[in-house]
Amino acid sequence: MSTETQELTSMQDLVSLCKQRGFLFQSSEIYGGVNACWDYGPLGVELKLNIKDSWWRAMTLRDDVEGLDASILMHPRTWEASGHVEGFVDPLVDCKTCKGRFRADKLDHAACGKKPSLKPGAHGECELTEPRQFNLMFKTNMGPIEDSSSVVYLRPETAQGIFVNFLNVQQSMRQKVPFGIAQIGKAFRNEITPGNFIFRTREFEQMEMQYFVRPGTDRDHFEKWKAVRHQWHLDNGLRAHKIRFHEHGPKELAHYALAAFDIEYEFPIGWQEIEGIHNRSDFDLRRHQEFSSKKMEYFDETTKERYLPYVIETSVGCDRALLAVLCDAYRIEGERTVLKLAKHLAPYKAAVLPLMKKPELLELTDKVETLLRKKMKITRDESGTIGKRYRRQDEIGTPACITIDYDGLADGTVTVRDRDTMAQERVSVDQLLGYLARND
Amino acid sequence: MSTETQELTSMQDLVSLCKQRGFLFQSSEIYGGVNACWDYGPLGVELKLNIKDSWWRAMTLRDDVEGLDASILMHPRTWEASGHVEGFVDPLVDCKTCKGRFRADKLDHAACGKKPSLKPGAHGECELTEPRQFNLMFKTNMGPIEDSSSVVYLRPETAQGIFVNFLNVQQSMRQKVPFGIAQIGKAFRNEITPGNFIFRTREFEQMEMQYFVRPGTDRDHFEKWKAVRHQWHLDNGLRAHKIRFHEHGPKELAHYALAAFDIEYEFPIGWQEIEGIHNRSDFDLRRHQEFSSKKMEYFDETTKERYLPYVIETSVGCDRALLAVLCDAYRIEGERTVLKLAKHLAPYKAAVLPLMKKPELLELTDKVETLLRKKMKITRDESGTIGKRYRRQDEIGTPACITIDYDGLADGTVTVRDRDTMAQERVSVDQLLGYLARND
Repeated sequence: MSTETQELTSMQDLVSLCKQRGFLFQSSEIYGGVNACWDYGPLGVELKLNIKDSWWRAMTLRDDVEGLDASILMHPRTWEASGHVEGFVDPLVDCKTCKGRFRADKLDHAACGKKPSLKPGAHGECELTEPRQFNLMFKTNMGPIEDSSSVVYLRPETAQGIFVNFLNVQQSMRQKVPFGIAQIGKAFRNEITPGNFIFRTREFEQMEMQYFVRPGTDRDHFEKWKAVRHQWHLDNGLRAHKIRFHEHGPKELAHYALAAFDIEYEFPIGWQEIEGIHNRSDFDLRRHQEFSSKKMEYFDETTKERYLPYVIETSVGCDRALLAVLCDAYRIEGERTVLKLAKHLAPYKAAVLPLMKKPELLELTDKVETLLRKKMKITRDESGTIGKRYRRQDEIGTPACITIDYDGLADGTVTVRDRDTMAQERVSVDQLLGYLARND
Repeated sequence: MSTETQELTSMQDLVSLCKQRGFLFQSSEIYGGVNACWDYGPLGVELKLNIKDSWWRAMTLRDDVEGLDASILMHPRTWEASGHVEGFVDPLVDCKTCKGRFRADKLDHAACGKKPSLKPGAHGECELTEPRQFNLMFKTNMGPIEDSSSVVYLRPETAQGIFVNFLNVQQSMRQKVPFGIAQIGKAFRNEITPGNFIFRTREFEQMEMQYFVRPGTDRDHFEKWKAVRHQWHLDNGLRAHKIRFHEHGPKELAHYALAAFDIEYEFPIGWQEIEGIHNRSDFDLRRHQEFSSKKMEYFDETTKERYLPYVIETSVGCDRALLAVLCDAYRIEGERTVLKLAKHLAPYKAAVLPLMKKPELLELTDKVETLLRKKMKITRDESGTIGKRYRRQDEIGTPACITIDYDGLADGTVTVRDRDTMAQERVSVDQLLGYLARND
């Protein structure tokens, strides 16, 4: 038996594990699926809730950040002000021969639509139209009349919900600049080339915070938030050598940004952005002031100044952060596959395993299960050899396996096996909750 | 000073409080708002998170219910199978005179579109068309081509995400019938007559659980879930005399339902549904089996039977549950307005109030704040008289006000004021965490 440790090398291995073990299913799979939408299964939803909770606690259990949950459907003027109606576009070409539609800037990656399809990049027989601009926002109509006056968009980012509510939040909470507004929520982009599992999807969840600061202090705040956000990913268990900063050069910078750093993770598909930290200047508040004709200025009661604050934004894709956590945790050690998830992120905190299905063991198992289930998410597994059951829990990242055996009947103890070290320790049932809650 | 207690009589009083104190803002307010969409402000989002957490814990910290988080955009065949494409419609009429569009079955409540508008019900001058069927699902297009082949819908309910994943969940989690699948998520309905604050909105959040049972056992499970769900609302603090069951008569029953009970709450606008408990029979699984040509049957390994389970559904509107909680908690007692929220739902668990802005008091205040902030959501308020600050916290439902005064500097104690009784108790800072965590 080999004890060599292997990391994740192919995304497909993770996709398989996620489907088999209830982390992620293709959306509407029985109908052939919806391209680039995924459903979180029982273990996936727990992992995702834990990641969201970890972000929410880190970002809002402080006196200078307020929470928000704005609606997905916003007034369409929002997206004119933000620049999305005009600028959130990809260039597309149609092929008159194969009737396919492709991104003009990514023709090398597109396969021809004829059957049998030409290989990606081989558009020799295709007769392509001039590129036209395709907007990536999903459009729908609100109210009973379907015309241009009733068009609304599914938000392509959560940030604008924060900008339009800047003064509502500041005034109702009597906040003083600098302060931030944090939000978790769904966003939608009609991507032409989605893919790589949950890395680029058409429906996704963002965790964004906009921090409003006095102009001139923006660079200092930018540096502080860079450090805070980097640390959060480390706290989630990502190994330091797998994450790095990437600074946007002048040509990469978005129209609203004075400065931008990505936090990148080294996925099996290469280094990719999982979070962006941006200095958005006063671009957004200024535009909303212009488009709404409502003053968006902050009044500083101490200095009696009125000004539009600058905004430092931290924007992390929840699904991407989760994908990074899964990729990073995945190991093959000899014959076992193990997810070395940080304890606070693991879907189950413990598994309760009676050594055999004997009444006296099951009775103590019931007692242990009842004790733990009130306090944490756990599972119970009675079927198969104990070794096989350990493997099942390793594969889904359960930090502790609690085995109930005959010794325990005599002295009120159980065996706790550690997922990572596979070391076993006997713990008294009375002290089990404290033992599992310890930080190590 | 009157000490008579008054309850909420007008929804408008609650709307005002919610806006002023950061619970709820009209969506995109600076652009004139989006009809029937609301944004949760800093205190609203905490209350909503607490309600969702309370539901999630009650429903999934048990061995027979699994969680799920399916995508909002599903395969369009889903909605053919569910009956929504054909049947999720309201009859609408157009007026050739005033150009308005109205629900044919609610003409009495619709105001004419002419300026000045006729009163609701007064359509004497209107020339109405024959009613036509208007589908309440929001439609959009996925992918680069906008035609009928790319139409997808925003889900009008979360339930179907559970049905299409029934076997994925059952098999990956090795569950045995009876078991349930629970989900929290957004749904969208293009309501013609939304209103009453967050009672009927076009974008809303559902908390649904589908419990799969052996046909023949469905009535027993139905009764059990009725009791469990009723208790949940009581645990959230709703007073027993304000909630009741309403059984659907034969004419009220939806096409899929064998039996249905609503849990109703007595809002200022009258008794209204906040949750539905339905026996959906095998309607949904059977339809998905038919429309997908995929077997949806459960195989019972003990009896070697194959069958389509029946489904007991519990479906609560998160926003409505929250509205009921707010309405129920609202009181005017003499000169104070107070939200008597259940402690586990209150946005802030405590407020830290230095008696005066003196350095030595602020130092102890810092210490208390740091101690608490790591463990719970709290606030700190230094401005105004202590009485005024108590009133502010009463109005947002903070259960405990912690005042730091000069006595405390000598003996390391603080005053804890109870929101409901207004009784004050001196508590040692060392014991403060335990004191606040106690159940009373």
